[in-house]
Amino acid sequence: MSPSPKPAVSVIGLGMMGTALAAAFLGAGHPVTVWNRSAARTGPLTAQGAIPADTAAEAVAASPLVVLCLSTNDTVRTVLEPLAGQLTGKTVANLTNGTPEQARDLAAWAAKEGAGYLDGGIMAVPQMIAGPHAYVLYSGARDLFDAHRETFAALGGTTYVGTDPGLAALYDLALLTGMYGMVMGVMQAYALVRTEAIAATEFSELLVPWVGAMLGSAPAWAAAVDSGRHLTDVSSLAVNQEAFPNLLETFAAQGVSTELFAPVQPLLDRAVAEGHAADGLSRLVDLLRTGPGTGPGTGSSAI
Amino acid sequence: MSPSPKPAVSVIGLGMMGTALAAAFLGAGHPVTVWNRSAARTGPLTAQGAIPADTAAEAVAASPLVVLCLSTNDTVRTVLEPLAGQLTGKTVANLTNGTPEQARDLAAWAAKEGAGYLDGGIMAVPQMIAGPHAYVLYSGARDLFDAHRETFAALGGTTYVGTDPGLAALYDLALLTGMYGMVMGVMQAYALVRTEAIAATEFSELLVPWVGAMLGSAPAWAAAVDSGRHLTDVSSLAVNQEAFPNLLETFAAQGVSTELFAPVQPLLDRAVAEGHAADGLSRLVDLLRTGPGTGPGTGSSAI
Ligand SMILES: NC(=O)c1ccc[n+]([C@@H]2O[C@H](COP(=O)([O-])OP(=O)(O)OC[C@H]3O[C@@H](n4cnc5c(N)ncnc54)[C@H](OP(=O)(O)O)[C@@H]3O)[C@@H](O)[C@H]2O)c1
Ligand SMILES: NC(=O)c1ccc[n+]([C@@H]2O[C@H](COP(=O)([O-])OP(=O)(O)OC[C@H]3O[C@@H](n4cnc5c(N)ncnc54)[C@H](OP(=O)(O)O)[C@@H]3O)[C@@H](O)[C@H]2O)c1
Repeated sequence: MSPSPKPAVSVIGLGMMGTALAAAFLGAGHPVTVWNRSAARTGPLTAQGAIPADTAAEAVAASPLVVLCLSTNDTVRTVLEPLAGQLTGKTVANLTNGTPEQARDLAAWAAKEGAGYLDGGIMAVPQMIAGPHAYVLYSGARDLFDAHRETFAALGGTTYVGTDPGLAALYDLALLTGMYGMVMGVMQAYALVRTEAIAATEFSELLVPWVGAMLGSAPAWAAAVDSGRHLTDVSSLAVNQEAFPNLLETFAAQGVSTELFAPVQPLLDRAVAEGHAADGLSRLVDLLRTGPGTGPGTGSSAI
Repeated sequence: MSPSPKPAVSVIGLGMMGTALAAAFLGAGHPVTVWNRSAARTGPLTAQGAIPADTAAEAVAASPLVVLCLSTNDTVRTVLEPLAGQLTGKTVANLTNGTPEQARDLAAWAAKEGAGYLDGGIMAVPQMIAGPHAYVLYSGARDLFDAHRETFAALGGTTYVGTDPGLAALYDLALLTGMYGMVMGVMQAYALVRTEAIAATEFSELLVPWVGAMLGSAPAWAAAVDSGRHLTDVSSLAVNQEAFPNLLETFAAQGVSTELFAPVQPLLDRAVAEGHAADGLSRLVDLLRTGPGTGPGTGSSAI
């Protein structure tokens, strides 16, 4: 019994990431058709066995699954909208970075065209694609995801996060948010130690294990957020409010900009003023919610 | 041959942390004299064998090494200044949280009093003291540190960071800076996912490994900072500048405050405008340096 042939995939957009995706599908044995605005970028992939399409329309026609990886969702619209009427019965998997709203709008447009739509968030750099640490977040109709899961597995882990097509972007942006916070902290810390001619590389040997250890509290903070019980016996908002000026004063005294960290102080002040002095840092999550959300954790009435 | 007796230590300040420190010295077999403004707090420690002093002066007189752990360095001054003339020959180890400037001022005052001064930064919560993951940063005269290192080891790891008495506070604050950045990112991410009724605990299972993995780049960023070579083939400032509005737009659309993250955008914009589009995030460290520092990494001329 010979294995059944792998389904065909078309990849539209051969930037750094799209090229890595197409190569991964090829590597897993899928017939792959590729298209890119600048035709020159198809070269390395055709050498690996990809079929170059002359137009985006031709690429769409070639496979039941069309994977898009373009610079922005505006670009995705620029490429897809001229193909109106030619997407019926296709599945569009858009792995371009964007917002939940953009994903929902594109899903609605695809539905109108009689096409299935899955949105994806790639949690990897191109060099990691098809490796053990890469994964992609997917959202949209569950049956559509299930139908293509094996194909997607060529790229790395497949994490399905829900039927709302906006959810992959939401998770993706939330993970990036966590990353940017860490990046801000690390860069600000390096700027501070460099004022004393301390090598950042040497300091990183203390910083990485320290931040990593503190990150170990994130599940406990999450449990506090979900339950609305923020009381702590480790590090209260009162203690943090009192300690934070030491940071801001020291940045200023040493010649480091306070622009990234200054907004934390009024947030801590507000938290204490609103009666949360004995709560832990997790209480800040409530204070950051400004508008009506669909989540059950809105406001502080959850206690 | 019986082991030589351990040197005596006095601990001034028996808050949550001071109590843990005194208990650790007792546990390691040191004779410990304790004093606290509110005398009631000495009770649990005298039950463990500590000698209660009636006044701070009495506590200072009792041991060659005087460890202070009070709420702030203003409190340290309030307690120490009335003891002028009684500190000659003593070593003061101030483990109170503060700024490098405060530490330097206290060291100068102690020198005038004929006392040795070490400053310390405790990288632990009270519950961790004397455990395998606690450590304390020390700065001040090396011979003073060496003379008391074995005693300090009762508290946890001993990390000596330099003769400038301000350095322990600087390292301490820089580590806290890294932690606060991570905390901001985690709390903002939780606020975002909660707008869609996603459990923070569930999301933390993606967030913790993701941020942990990204933290793995911190040594490479440090190397870029030290060398002044920021060119990257992974995640350029141009890419980050283009992606960041997706975050800010999504916070606003989902009802999450942008107050903590808004300052990142102008920083990215400035970095690109100043010609660093192809550099990695580590370039931001230079942009955060506003004043003259003593470090060799000032400005962008290091390339
Ligand atoms: N690189 C990463 O580390 C990474 C990680 C996770 C997610 N992503 C996401 O993956 C997506 C692609 O990133 P990338 O790194 O591959 O970017 P890239 O190398 O800059 O590639 C951009 C792609 O978009 C195409 N494009 C831009 N404007 C177009 C237009 N008006 N019409 C048609 N095509 C157009 C480009 O075509 P030309 O070749 O003709 O210019 C190219 O194929 C982005 O959304 C990015 O956020 C990237
Ligand atoms: N707790 C932690 O997790 C932690 C971690 C690292 C570093 N630290 C640092 O350790 C230091 C102590 O923290 P803590 O948690 O022990 O705080 P705490 O429980 O609030 O204790 C504060 C101490 O300061 C004394 N004090 C305050 N004002 C005073 C005054 N005017 N005169 C005399 N004594 C005064 C208090 O005496 P009374 O009992 O009479 O009020 C008490 O002994 C702080 O600098 C803190 O930042 C704490």
